[in-house]
Amino acid sequence: MKEGDRVIVRKEGKIYEGILMPERDGFIVLKLDNGYNIGINPEGAEIEVLEEFRSQEVRKEVLEERDGLPLISIVSTGGTIASKVDYRTGAVTAKFSPEEILELIPEMKELANYRGRSLFNILSENMRPENWVQMAKAVYEEIKNGAYGVIITHGTDTMGYSSAALSFMLRTPVPVVFVGAQRSADRPSSDNVVNAVCSTHVAKSNIAEVVVAMHHTTSDDLVAVHRGTKVRKMHMSRRDAFKSINATPVALVEYPSGKIKVLGDYVKRNERELEIYPKLEEKCALLKFFPGSPPEIIDFFIERGYRGIVIEGTGLGHVSAEWIPHIKEAVESGVLVTMTSQCLFGRVCDRVYDTGRDLLRAGVVEAEDMLPETALVKSMWLLAHYDLEEAKRLMKVNLVGEINPRSTGGAEFGF
Amino acid sequence: MKEGDRVIVRKEGKIYEGILMPERDGFIVLKLDNGYNIGINPEGAEIEVLEEFRSQEVRKEVLEERDGLPLISIVSTGGTIASKVDYRTGAVTAKFSPEEILELIPEMKELANYRGRSLFNILSENMRPENWVQMAKAVYEEIKNGAYGVIITHGTDTMGYSSAALSFMLRTPVPVVFVGAQRSADRPSSDNVVNAVCSTHVAKSNIAEVVVAMHHTTSDDLVAVHRGTKVRKMHMSRRDAFKSINATPVALVEYPSGKIKVLGDYVKRNERELEIYPKLEEKCALLKFFPGSPPEIIDFFIERGYRGIVIEGTGLGHVSAEWIPHIKEAVESGVLVTMTSQCLFGRVCDRVYDTGRDLLRAGVVEAEDMLPETALVKSMWLLAHYDLEEAKRLMKVNLVGEINPRSTGGAEFGF
Repeated sequence: MKEGDRVIVRKEGKIYEGILMPERDGFIVLKLDNGYNIGINPEGAEIEVLEEFRSQEVRKEVLEERDGLPLISIVSTGGTIASKVDYRTGAVTAKFSPEEILELIPEMKELANYRGRSLFNILSENMRPENWVQMAKAVYEEIKNGAYGVIITHGTDTMGYSSAALSFMLRTPVPVVFVGAQRSADRPSSDNVVNAVCSTHVAKSNIAEVVVAMHHTTSDDLVAVHRGTKVRKMHMSRRDAFKSINATPVALVEYPSGKIKVLGDYVKRNERELEIYPKLEEKCALLKFFPGSPPEIIDFFIERGYRGIVIEGTGLGHVSAEWIPHIKEAVESGVLVTMTSQCLFGRVCDRVYDTGRDLLRAGVVEAEDMLPETALVKSMWLLAHYDLEEAKRLMKVNLVGEINPRSTGGAEFGF
Repeated sequence: MKEGDRVIVRKEGKIYEGILMPERDGFIVLKLDNGYNIGINPEGAEIEVLEEFRSQEVRKEVLEERDGLPLISIVSTGGTIASKVDYRTGAVTAKFSPEEILELIPEMKELANYRGRSLFNILSENMRPENWVQMAKAVYEEIKNGAYGVIITHGTDTMGYSSAALSFMLRTPVPVVFVGAQRSADRPSSDNVVNAVCSTHVAKSNIAEVVVAMHHTTSDDLVAVHRGTKVRKMHMSRRDAFKSINATPVALVEYPSGKIKVLGDYVKRNERELEIYPKLEEKCALLKFFPGSPPEIIDFFIERGYRGIVIEGTGLGHVSAEWIPHIKEAVESGVLVTMTSQCLFGRVCDRVYDTGRDLLRAGVVEAEDMLPETALVKSMWLLAHYDLEEAKRLMKVNLVGEINPRSTGGAEFGF
């Protein structure tokens, strides 16, 4: 018997059926049909193979083109939407190639021709800014090589960070659509089919922006298209976990019809030339303030050469008075310090209180209605492309929909 | 002319009318009738006094009791609900005594007799764990001295942290109601009257828990009563900013009728004896994970003697793989490391992914559906009252409604 085999384990009168996984700490591990793993002490256990694992045949890198269907690129980076083959390699670790995604979701084949690109196989909590740069470059190449739209499969944990990063790095004439699944593809309640099919409809659409396409409700008939800079994972497990914050979604996609209902302004297909600005200053940090939090945490980052600090303050964007001298020192040493709020909803502004005014005097830049996570990514991008004063100015200017309503400025960069 | 006077400033053909505030950086500062301050360069400006400021007469510490009305204690700690007299001292800095609150909201006088206690005058972003201890002790004394219910006026920024802290420190036979206002009391759109009046109805009610009473909607007819451990400020400026997360509010209060509609289970009046457990381990930190965040941030806190660390992970409660050895080291050195999620909604559990299982092996405690902020406060309280192993066990046990649904355990402490 080998990993991937379907087996029955009998022990102490109990029977367990599932797929055999790599052992862990000496235990037999079975993936049950409900998607969960159990560990069984092998002592006294009896195993019977029901069905042997057969490795799938190697598929072609590019599916044969059919007339009249546009070419969509699928860039896979790992994540839940692509978890089924992980039976082979232990628990649920991302493993699907774009071809395997199409095999799993044949409905997609009716909608487009596809080109696949397995970029990484990284759980999204392990994504780093350097991965965002690689992702942007891969998408850029796919578009340059004729993709009518790009789908990026991505784990849901940090999808919002990645979509914000690509929003700043790419100017795209075609849709760039992040998609994932909250439930493993091997679980009966998985949302992967609806999300993946609807992401294809978006990739074929007129919405030439970096967006996230995920379930809009818990039912299977509607997927929301969120602007990449305004979206946040707001629930740990629900299928409709992704929400636009301080913005409405760009559009809704009906399933199975694929009909797209536009909810607001968006950049149209071919309205922009393809361009890429793929640099990020990784030395940027996001700090959440809490009562009693030591202001020396700011010094910790300054001492390590950090050039940008985004603070998640309280309320309208506050911290305790004892933080202010440390912030002032950071600003004076040339660090971009930006204030957001742990409330998430609303706008950092209208500072009528003492500490708010002291913060402004200390040189803090207010992030308007930007998400803390987006302000972090924007800091990384601005500091890699502009000098400090210009970065400070642009932090408060809407560049790619990250601030709502659209402000003026940023024109010198073509936004 | 002096600060607090109502004046007209004429300059370059423009006329400004408002209350004269202390000057700032050489500028004349006026508080306009819309609540905002403006600074005017005194050069060439002409000032005329319309009405002189008269300091209010000193009021009695306890209002005369009227027959048939219960005695409610108002403990004031600062914050927006109490901002009007700040005209005197510069911008909007908290200043109201309980008596001044009653003067501002005469409707409250019809509902109860009051005893006032001006505990602090602190903007809520400056509250520290030591203030929570003082608050708990003050409320304890008020109840011991016969209060039928206690109202705590508090700035909204950190109200959720304070309400969680008092939830753990106090066992109360009467209602303990936090209340505040999102808009300054001097602004026409202020929510202070409705919130304050409804907090009085709650203080007179049968709900003997630590709760937060704030606008339920943007209209003025409904106030929500949130359990102190489940509430979070989710909007920077809206009146209905406070929301129960992973729980329904305990009740709704109609305004102006004062009718209370109970939505779920609660601890009844006199069901518990008055007790206080007023210790907090201040050396506890809340860390938000972000892509690329340096794991040395954990070491920073360990080196400073921190005994509890709450991590706001991604998704179901994840961090990048490089954080795990640092977490393991923290746990092995005797630190309580707890995992929550930056999604806020949902439950940290069902770990089917590799990094999640590695985290459990590293000794991380999962915070179930607790708010990150509540998990921080709970760490402070547990580590001050229990040894490490018991603190670890109790972190996952529902003690005062912080975990939903109610779990077993904690009985040895009487919860």
